[in-house]
Amino acid sequence: MSVGLVSTRKVGLYTEDDPLVLASGQTLGPVEVAYETYGVLAPARDNVVVICHALTGDAHAAGHHGDPTRPGWWDSMIGPGRAVDTDRFFVVCANLLGGCQGTTGPLWVDPRTGRAYGTDFPLLAMTDLVTVQRRLLAELGIDRVHAAVGGSLGGMQVLQWALDAPDQVDRAVLVGASSRLTAENIAFSTVARTAILRDPDFAGGHYPTTGRSPEVGLAVARILAHITYLSEESLEVKFGRRRRDDGPPRLGTHFEVESYLEHQAEVFLARFDALSYLYLTRVMDYFDPFADPTAAPRIAGGGTRFLMLSFDSDWRFPTPHSERIHRQLLGAGASSEHEELHSSWGHDSFLLEPPGYHDRVRAFLG
Amino acid sequence: MSVGLVSTRKVGLYTEDDPLVLASGQTLGPVEVAYETYGVLAPARDNVVVICHALTGDAHAAGHHGDPTRPGWWDSMIGPGRAVDTDRFFVVCANLLGGCQGTTGPLWVDPRTGRAYGTDFPLLAMTDLVTVQRRLLAELGIDRVHAAVGGSLGGMQVLQWALDAPDQVDRAVLVGASSRLTAENIAFSTVARTAILRDPDFAGGHYPTTGRSPEVGLAVARILAHITYLSEESLEVKFGRRRRDDGPPRLGTHFEVESYLEHQAEVFLARFDALSYLYLTRVMDYFDPFADPTAAPRIAGGGTRFLMLSFDSDWRFPTPHSERIHRQLLGAGASSEHEELHSSWGHDSFLLEPPGYHDRVRAFLG
Repeated sequence: MSVGLVSTRKVGLYTEDDPLVLASGQTLGPVEVAYETYGVLAPARDNVVVICHALTGDAHAAGHHGDPTRPGWWDSMIGPGRAVDTDRFFVVCANLLGGCQGTTGPLWVDPRTGRAYGTDFPLLAMTDLVTVQRRLLAELGIDRVHAAVGGSLGGMQVLQWALDAPDQVDRAVLVGASSRLTAENIAFSTVARTAILRDPDFAGGHYPTTGRSPEVGLAVARILAHITYLSEESLEVKFGRRRRDDGPPRLGTHFEVESYLEHQAEVFLARFDALSYLYLTRVMDYFDPFADPTAAPRIAGGGTRFLMLSFDSDWRFPTPHSERIHRQLLGAGASSEHEELHSSWGHDSFLLEPPGYHDRVRAFLG
Repeated sequence: MSVGLVSTRKVGLYTEDDPLVLASGQTLGPVEVAYETYGVLAPARDNVVVICHALTGDAHAAGHHGDPTRPGWWDSMIGPGRAVDTDRFFVVCANLLGGCQGTTGPLWVDPRTGRAYGTDFPLLAMTDLVTVQRRLLAELGIDRVHAAVGGSLGGMQVLQWALDAPDQVDRAVLVGASSRLTAENIAFSTVARTAILRDPDFAGGHYPTTGRSPEVGLAVARILAHITYLSEESLEVKFGRRRRDDGPPRLGTHFEVESYLEHQAEVFLARFDALSYLYLTRVMDYFDPFADPTAAPRIAGGGTRFLMLSFDSDWRFPTPHSERIHRQLLGAGASSEHEELHSSWGHDSFLLEPPGYHDRVRAFLG
C-alpha cells in the first residue's frame, strides 16, 4: 500500500555563523535540508530507517504530492506492508547536500557574494553528505537508526555512515553500490564532465547568474548515464532496431531507442541541475574508504550488520563491487552478507522489483 | 618488416556529369578517392588484398610518410613477411566515401552551390561505400580480389562487398564486425549525435562555412567511443585510480584516465571531422543486410570463403555479433569459419597483436 499524500519539509541545520565544517576544512553556511518522513516515530525512537538516495534522486521517496499516479522514486519499496514497512518503521529521506531539490547546493546564494555559488561551491566528500544526514537526525531527536538503506550512491553513503558513526547504524543495506570506482566508471564520469564543463552555457561555472544553463552538456550526460543504468538485454527487448516511422534514413532521430533517450534527457533537464551533477559525480569518483586500512576494523567495531545486494545484469557497478565491500568487512570481522540477484534490468534494478529483492530487504530489516 | 616510405594518391572516379548514383537514388559528383597501395600487382592481377578501414581510419594503413616512428594504422598487420604479406600481395587501402581524409565527404564543395555540402551531403548506405571501393579497383585494372580484410566498420564493408559482388571476393576476413547493431550500439551513437548536432558550433550543419566546428561535441563523442573500444580490464590495468598530482579534489581533470581521454580527444580533433563522424556512424546504424532473406544465399552463391574473428573482451561488437554473421552464412551454405580469440584489450584488439591473431589471418590468406 502507498503511504499516500506526503509533503517535503525543510529545515535549517547550519547558519553563516554556525557553519558546516567540511572534510576539506572549508565551511558552508547556511545549510538547509529538504526531507520527508513516512510512518510514526516510536516513543523509544528505535524504529528509524534512513533512506539514502542515488545521484539524481530526491527527498520524495514514497507516497505522492497530490497525484497518486506520480509516486516517489522508491514507492514500491516503502509503504504500509512493503519491504520497508511504514506500519513498523519511521522512515526518513533527505535530499543530498550539493543537490538541487531543496537542500543547499551550488545554485544557492553565497552569502559572501550575494550571488549563486556556481563553481565557488566547495568540493564535497562522502563524509560531508553523511554529516548533514546525521545532523538532520539529531534535529529530529534521533540518536540511532534501525537501518540505513541505499542504492548506488545511496549505498555508498550508507557505508560512509557506518564508518563515521559505527555505533549509530544497526543494519546497513547497500544495493548496487561501490566502495571504489574503477577507471572505466571514472571514464564515464569524464564524458559527462567534459560535456558540461565545455558547454558554452556553463559560463565558467557561473551560469546561474546568466539565465541560461548548460542544457546540451547535461542532456548528453544523462543520455550516456541512462544507457549505463540499463542492460544491453533490456534495451534490446524494449527497443531493438525499431524505428519511429518508415521514412528514409536521416542524421536526426529515427530509431525508437534514440527517441526514448532524448525524451529521458528532456524530462531530466526539467528537474536536475548540471552543477549538482558535477559535484555529486565527483563525490563518487573520489570515494575510496578502504584505501585507509583502519576503515574496515573501525566499521566492524561498531557492530553494524551489513547486507550487500547486487544484480547480475548491472554493468555500472557489477557484482565485484559489492563483493569487494563484503570481503573487506568480513575480513575485519564485521557481520556481512552478500547476494547477487538475477535481474535483466541492469543497474536500475535497484529501483525495480526483480524476484526476491524486496523480500530479501524485508527479511534483513527483521 | 615495414613497407617503408609510402604516399597517398588521389584519383577522380566520378564527375558532376557522370556522378555516383547512390542506393538512395541521389547522385554525387565529382567524387575523388584517396588511396595507398603496397607491394606489386602480379601480371595475372590475382594477388590483390583490399583493406577496408574502420570509422576513423584512413587510406594510410601501412608504412610511413617520412617519419618511420609514425606508421600507418595497421602497419603491424601489413608489410613484407607480415600477416598481409606485401612480398606476395598487392594491397590497396582507400579512405571511405563520406570520410575526411582525402576522399569526398561533407566538407567538400557542392558544385551546385559553390560552398561545402555540410548536411546537404546525401545520406550514405554501406553499399555506396563498397561501390566506390569497387570503382577504384576497376580504375586500377583489377577485376577480382584475393581477399578483402577489415575490422569493425571495415569488416561490415567486406560483408557488403561479398553481397554486392559475390564473384569478386575470394576470401573475406571480418574482425570484430557486426551485421546488425543492437539498441545499445545505436544508443552509444545517440550520445555522439546529440553532442555534435546540439553543439552551437554545428551551425545547422553548415559550420564549414563559418570557420568554426563543433569541437566540444566531437570531443565528447570521441571520449565515449574510446571508452567503448577498450575493456574495463585494460583501463584498470593502465590507469586504475591514479591521479596526475597530489592536489586536492577538484571538478577539473585529476585522474590519469581523464587526462588520457582528454588528450585522445585533442589528437582526434586535429584529424577528424564531426560531419564525417555523423554520416559514417549512421551508415553503421542502418546496416542490416540479413534483414533481406535473399542476402545470405546470394553471398553463398559467389563462393567467397569467410573468416570471422572476434575478441573475448570486445563489448562494442562482442562475439555474438560475429557468430550471427557466421550462422547466417553457414545456414546458406557458404564457407565460413569463426573464432573467438583471447585478448584483454577490448574492441581495439583488432588493431593490436593479441596471441594467435595475425597467424590466423596469415594462414587464411593462404
